[in-house]
Amino acid sequence: MSIHGGDVYRNHVDMDFSINVNPLGTPECVKEALHRAVDLCGKYPDMEAEKLGEAVSTFLGVPKEYLLFGNGASELFMAIVRGIKPEKVVIPAPSFYGYEYAAKSVDSDIIYYEMKQENNFCVTEDMNCILTEDVDILFLANPGNPIGNLLDKEMMKEMLLHCRDKGIYVVVDECFIEFCGNQFSFLPETAKFENLILVRAFTKIFAIPGVRLGYLVCKNEAVHTRIAGQLPEWNLSCFAQEAGCICAKQAEFIEKTGNYIEKERQFMEKNLRKIGLRTFPSASNFIMIYSDIPLYEKLLEKGILIRDCSNFKGLGKGFYRIAVKRREENEILLKAIESL
Amino acid sequence: MSIHGGDVYRNHVDMDFSINVNPLGTPECVKEALHRAVDLCGKYPDMEAEKLGEAVSTFLGVPKEYLLFGNGASELFMAIVRGIKPEKVVIPAPSFYGYEYAAKSVDSDIIYYEMKQENNFCVTEDMNCILTEDVDILFLANPGNPIGNLLDKEMMKEMLLHCRDKGIYVVVDECFIEFCGNQFSFLPETAKFENLILVRAFTKIFAIPGVRLGYLVCKNEAVHTRIAGQLPEWNLSCFAQEAGCICAKQAEFIEKTGNYIEKERQFMEKNLRKIGLRTFPSASNFIMIYSDIPLYEKLLEKGILIRDCSNFKGLGKGFYRIAVKRREENEILLKAIESL
Repeated sequence: MSIHGGDVYRNHVDMDFSINVNPLGTPECVKEALHRAVDLCGKYPDMEAEKLGEAVSTFLGVPKEYLLFGNGASELFMAIVRGIKPEKVVIPAPSFYGYEYAAKSVDSDIIYYEMKQENNFCVTEDMNCILTEDVDILFLANPGNPIGNLLDKEMMKEMLLHCRDKGIYVVVDECFIEFCGNQFSFLPETAKFENLILVRAFTKIFAIPGVRLGYLVCKNEAVHTRIAGQLPEWNLSCFAQEAGCICAKQAEFIEKTGNYIEKERQFMEKNLRKIGLRTFPSASNFIMIYSDIPLYEKLLEKGILIRDCSNFKGLGKGFYRIAVKRREENEILLKAIESL
Repeated sequence: MSIHGGDVYRNHVDMDFSINVNPLGTPECVKEALHRAVDLCGKYPDMEAEKLGEAVSTFLGVPKEYLLFGNGASELFMAIVRGIKPEKVVIPAPSFYGYEYAAKSVDSDIIYYEMKQENNFCVTEDMNCILTEDVDILFLANPGNPIGNLLDKEMMKEMLLHCRDKGIYVVVDECFIEFCGNQFSFLPETAKFENLILVRAFTKIFAIPGVRLGYLVCKNEAVHTRIAGQLPEWNLSCFAQEAGCICAKQAEFIEKTGNYIEKERQFMEKNLRKIGLRTFPSASNFIMIYSDIPLYEKLLEKGILIRDCSNFKGLGKGFYRIAVKRREENEILLKAIESL
């Protein structure tokens, strides 16, 4: 089952628009760190990830006690549900499948909150109605995936308060936030809300999904300890630790990426609409579109892979997600779509 | 807490005899694979680890359906207990702490089986007495750690039968088996016993603890599926997958290592006993010794780290584990001990 992007290992693909990593690629200094790490493999990686913790703490401006690292964000989602042991979780639909996968691994009941097409698939205040005391965890994404839309800050502050009152932990997945701009992050709220668990990764922004490095930010010490106790020992490779230390110093690269993505996304949106496709508002490095043509199959014939979103709960046939890549690649995709 | 070897990140260490990786180091071809992997990091690693599965299946001579890969053996121990959800587990003492860590993460009751010093800390038939129907998992290691002794094949076959009758899964940790010789492995028994789960790693034999790659071998399809459902998505980095494919072709290196280790272990044992230390019979690349002198502290003053085993359940003050390394290193250690 393809639960993330497309399967480039079992398809012939020349251009992959199904995964959403930084089109500017991995910075050279990060690649150099990965090469350096080869010589560190003979030692067990630092279980306390001390250097990495310090680097990321400085990078984010949060105490290092708030941080916990994982072998990708996916490991952290699993550890969170194991640490909190939720009987009931709320997940918006459509969402990244990983929240459901994690919740199912601990046999939680799952309540889906339907984000409506007439609201452009946004979370709205009416979600509070299902956030009752029997709910243990609410999963949210900022920006959402596959739509790319941001959570409304004011609404969210109300919701965090509401959840705190009801004893609900709010897990906010910010794995794509760097493409949108740091001002939209809920990082500042981690100091105020002990029920907030922010999950992030270096995967997308530094185009290193093969390395596996994610982290969470949470002030709540007890929760922190419970989650940490569910992580295997030495879960971070020396590659993740070495590269992460360097990634945490690339503020300039992140800003450059943000500017590039904004320009390219607007270019793509304008041209996709010109072709006659429906696009949904995104603030991120991917765009969800709707088309009556079987785009996935037709583009794959041309060696181009996009994400067919028909298996996302809350979507259906006709929805596709495409990554925002480099101008020359984006133009090829646009031409290919136009030719259909 | 130091649950594995010593903490080289927070001690001044010139020579590390506390971790037990191959003294011959990582083969150049494996290092080359790791360097190559840097260029693969921009793609998500293959979730199905298809190439790796084929390589290891050929290497071991077991169907690839028996295999499941983890981010180190440590992740697999966690996934096993989550998949099986044992109410009660049996762990021999002394043992690697990881089994206890895993069992505690799912709140299992733990029964310790005391391996007695008068039996040289071996598992003996009397273990069957505590393997009753209410036990769900028995953890064993072949060779054991920190002693390095092998499980008796005939006794084990009886025990596997006994456990099968009682509905007990037997998890055998063979992370060091390559140092002892493949003829001592329980790999052939995986085809016969559906209650046997063999856990192995490339970590020690290829001296790559920083890469994180372990695997399990289990014929039981239902158990396989349950364990797999407890692993995070994309748990294997592209480094692990790329290196693993190459490791699986190094039968010659493994044999060379085995011969080297046997010679050096005998050299060490002889000389340690000559110095007047008590050694315990080992078939692996480490030796447990007993000394009344505070060896750990005294050697650390000289920049040499050994494993103080006093915090192993079933041992106590005076037990130490030392790795078998290269002749020139072993001689330095022997001289340092002699001088105390």
